[in-house]
Amino acid sequence: MQKRIGIIDLGSNTTRMIVMGYTPHHSFRLLDEVRESVRLAEGIGPDGRLTPSAMDRAVATMRLFHALSHSEQVQMIVPVATSAVREATNQAEFVARVAAEASVSMRVLTAREEAYYGYLGVVNSIDLRDGFTIDIGGGSTQVSMVRGRGFLRWYSQPIGALRAAERFVRSDPISNKDFRALESGVADYFASLDWLNVEQGPMLVGIGGTIRTLAEIDQKLHGYPLDRVHGYVLLRERLEALINQLRSMDQRQREDVPGLRRDRADLILPGAVILAHLMRRGGFEALTVGGQGLREGIFYEHFLVGEQPPLFADMRGFSVQNLARIYNYEALHAAKVRDLALSMFDQLRSLHHYGEWERMLLGYAATLHDIGLAVNYYDHHKHGAYLVLNSALQGFTHREIALIALLVQFHRKGDVDAGPLRAILHPDDEQRVLRLAALLRIAEYLERRKCQVVQDIMVEVGDPVRMVARTIGDAAVEIWDANRASRLFRKAYGRDVAIC
Amino acid sequence: MQKRIGIIDLGSNTTRMIVMGYTPHHSFRLLDEVRESVRLAEGIGPDGRLTPSAMDRAVATMRLFHALSHSEQVQMIVPVATSAVREATNQAEFVARVAAEASVSMRVLTAREEAYYGYLGVVNSIDLRDGFTIDIGGGSTQVSMVRGRGFLRWYSQPIGALRAAERFVRSDPISNKDFRALESGVADYFASLDWLNVEQGPMLVGIGGTIRTLAEIDQKLHGYPLDRVHGYVLLRERLEALINQLRSMDQRQREDVPGLRRDRADLILPGAVILAHLMRRGGFEALTVGGQGLREGIFYEHFLVGEQPPLFADMRGFSVQNLARIYNYEALHAAKVRDLALSMFDQLRSLHHYGEWERMLLGYAATLHDIGLAVNYYDHHKHGAYLVLNSALQGFTHREIALIALLVQFHRKGDVDAGPLRAILHPDDEQRVLRLAALLRIAEYLERRKCQVVQDIMVEVGDPVRMVARTIGDAAVEIWDANRASRLFRKAYGRDVAIC
Repeated sequence: MQKRIGIIDLGSNTTRMIVMGYTPHHSFRLLDEVRESVRLAEGIGPDGRLTPSAMDRAVATMRLFHALSHSEQVQMIVPVATSAVREATNQAEFVARVAAEASVSMRVLTAREEAYYGYLGVVNSIDLRDGFTIDIGGGSTQVSMVRGRGFLRWYSQPIGALRAAERFVRSDPISNKDFRALESGVADYFASLDWLNVEQGPMLVGIGGTIRTLAEIDQKLHGYPLDRVHGYVLLRERLEALINQLRSMDQRQREDVPGLRRDRADLILPGAVILAHLMRRGGFEALTVGGQGLREGIFYEHFLVGEQPPLFADMRGFSVQNLARIYNYEALHAAKVRDLALSMFDQLRSLHHYGEWERMLLGYAATLHDIGLAVNYYDHHKHGAYLVLNSALQGFTHREIALIALLVQFHRKGDVDAGPLRAILHPDDEQRVLRLAALLRIAEYLERRKCQVVQDIMVEVGDPVRMVARTIGDAAVEIWDANRASRLFRKAYGRDVAIC
Repeated sequence: MQKRIGIIDLGSNTTRMIVMGYTPHHSFRLLDEVRESVRLAEGIGPDGRLTPSAMDRAVATMRLFHALSHSEQVQMIVPVATSAVREATNQAEFVARVAAEASVSMRVLTAREEAYYGYLGVVNSIDLRDGFTIDIGGGSTQVSMVRGRGFLRWYSQPIGALRAAERFVRSDPISNKDFRALESGVADYFASLDWLNVEQGPMLVGIGGTIRTLAEIDQKLHGYPLDRVHGYVLLRERLEALINQLRSMDQRQREDVPGLRRDRADLILPGAVILAHLMRRGGFEALTVGGQGLREGIFYEHFLVGEQPPLFADMRGFSVQNLARIYNYEALHAAKVRDLALSMFDQLRSLHHYGEWERMLLGYAATLHDIGLAVNYYDHHKHGAYLVLNSALQGFTHREIALIALLVQFHRKGDVDAGPLRAILHPDDEQRVLRLAALLRIAEYLERRKCQVVQDIMVEVGDPVRMVARTIGDAAVEIWDANRASRLFRKAYGRDVAIC
């Protein structure tokens, strides 16, 4: 990690800074994140001016962030401001104050740039090819259309969770009258958005604090087994039910809702109404939640410097590699286990009938199979699964992450059991794990001494299945161990396997 | 980790090798462990000879272990044999075969050495000052008396789980007659052991595969919240109940007992009977299970080279440091957080009335508070707790490990909630965590930029409590953040705190 960059995002409601350590094109990791509820857009009147007290709060926060990034040895700070500053009639005065008093030169993003960086954060962290992104902020909402991973068009309205709350909500709990005004007011803002439509692209991704919070509340309500918002699928049906619950609560009751931060309790309902409106309008039954947005989008522009547009060519492959490197994996060993497992997979297609998707999962699991050694030798298969489930892996669905984690967990011993993860798997996934883990386990034992003594494996699909190892040097240890590990194979395929 | 050592333990039932990476006196970690159920002592007749097939199995295994350690770049192999070889009338023949066919020069341990190394493994991993260790192997059982951590006396009998099974068990499920013969046969072996007595030393520690397995079965039966055998307390009452259950099962039923390996299913009952007999005889109601024994004892002799006897002067302190180093902790930051937290602790004694034990836990938690960053920045407090719970920390009870893990978990945000760990805490421990975490959290935020700008803190115990930071340089960020973190303090102590 040769470089450190700090990215500050001065939003209408929340101000955040992330600090990333990175080596361009090679590896990165999040080192720090700070969040402050500045509410810069609060109290803006008909004159469109940021209020003095809001500006004071923002300047104080920027000073703190600047000091923080300074001591964290950040070489470059990228401070951006979004809709609150963009639309303020006293923008110049505010930007000058921040420069003078906090030594920070803000870059005020245009609405298009705000939409674009949000899009960049999404397509570099979620497997979105054709569809839309929605970014609901405090002061504005951006919608972008994505086609073949490209940024096709965008739409922005100066209505976000904070502005909608200030404009339409005057009662607590919200009165029916206010709620109707909120709904129709939101609808008015988006009346001219005529291209958000599930038929134009099947996938809808949502980002921003409001949407992440809605996902967290939904997860907690339903005992979701993963502690992971990025990639979570929020159903519209559940969102509408949640809106109905929130409508009947007053501020205090909302503050007690698990997953909802106190400083967002007054904004969550207006934010949810915006989201529900857009989903209904576009005909989307489900939304994939993105944990990365504007700030990460700006980061990727630096990380992928030279790429135009700055998109990962192979997001998943990169991300798996990045994770493996963080835990100092043994690259040669992992690569050989991967080759052997994939070779068996290919030669056994007539038995398992799986395709490229399973092959990909098996390969990634092989790359990551030993990362749990970083925690403790004992139970390192379990620790590896924990690390996968809690990692910042990009581009995978939760189901895929669960499958990779289970393959890591069962790569060396034990009978496959998905446990609580079953809730996010499909009915036949446990068998899928069993069949893939059986191959991974044999491959792992063929690499028992981690010295690539088994070069390749030839599979004869009979009953029993015969596997002949091509070796350089004495592979007695490996052959013996691989045969011991073949019990899972019998369970997975209903045939014995003889390895020699 | 400049050195690698492989330690092979050729037991009567199981043969194991561990590979340790280490820098003497500084740091170590387990890199690999292999286990093979050789059953060397199986089938020994009245002539006392190892059988040809048992020797073949042992030679093959030693050859494999030798090859394995070779490719793992082990610079030194220490292969030891215990009672099966020690008592074999054809010992010389066997040792010569292993040397010729596997290139391994076995060292045959005397009964005293076997007891001594087991003791060394125990006192370097469990806080045993005065008491006893029991090591139940396949072919023999060792009992040692420990006084002031020293090795006072020892006792050994050539009866272990495997030998007892061969000698007394001829029915499946075991008949009442066989069971009585087993019990009285075991009692006969230990008739002359007259100094194993709870009044001679209050703590009893048990090691070896049989005892670890009994602990695992007991944990699984009762839904124990930690996945950790080392340090587990097994109650005699529960052991006796388990024996009654095992008595009624046949081999197949035992093979299905969760926590019981198939290759040990026939030995577990005889092993349990030996343990129960010794506990009853010594008047012990509880046994602390040790996960380290003979092999680790031999390792510590190398790791602590120069110490006589090779004991950690400060086992817990070393172990915490070792863990922190594994995760590349920031030493200066951790040390400052520790100093600040302990300084507050000392100055607030009139409020919390805690003593040296709590002070120690707080200090260790401060050292480890950020290790979760190795997993993921997001939720690193939770990951840190996971790492502590799953680490190889030595010298702590499970309750202490849970307390340290909870302090790490709540060092930066959230309300204290012990969750499933409550099952191993005392009733007032959650408040203990709350009060200590409140200090740790303030200390952490006083080190917000990790640059030691806050040098020290003066506490005035009034209402509100006032804390005055002595700083070098501008500490506005830290003071501001520490005040934000003071909500937990109010909850813990019922008073506000003002930091300036």
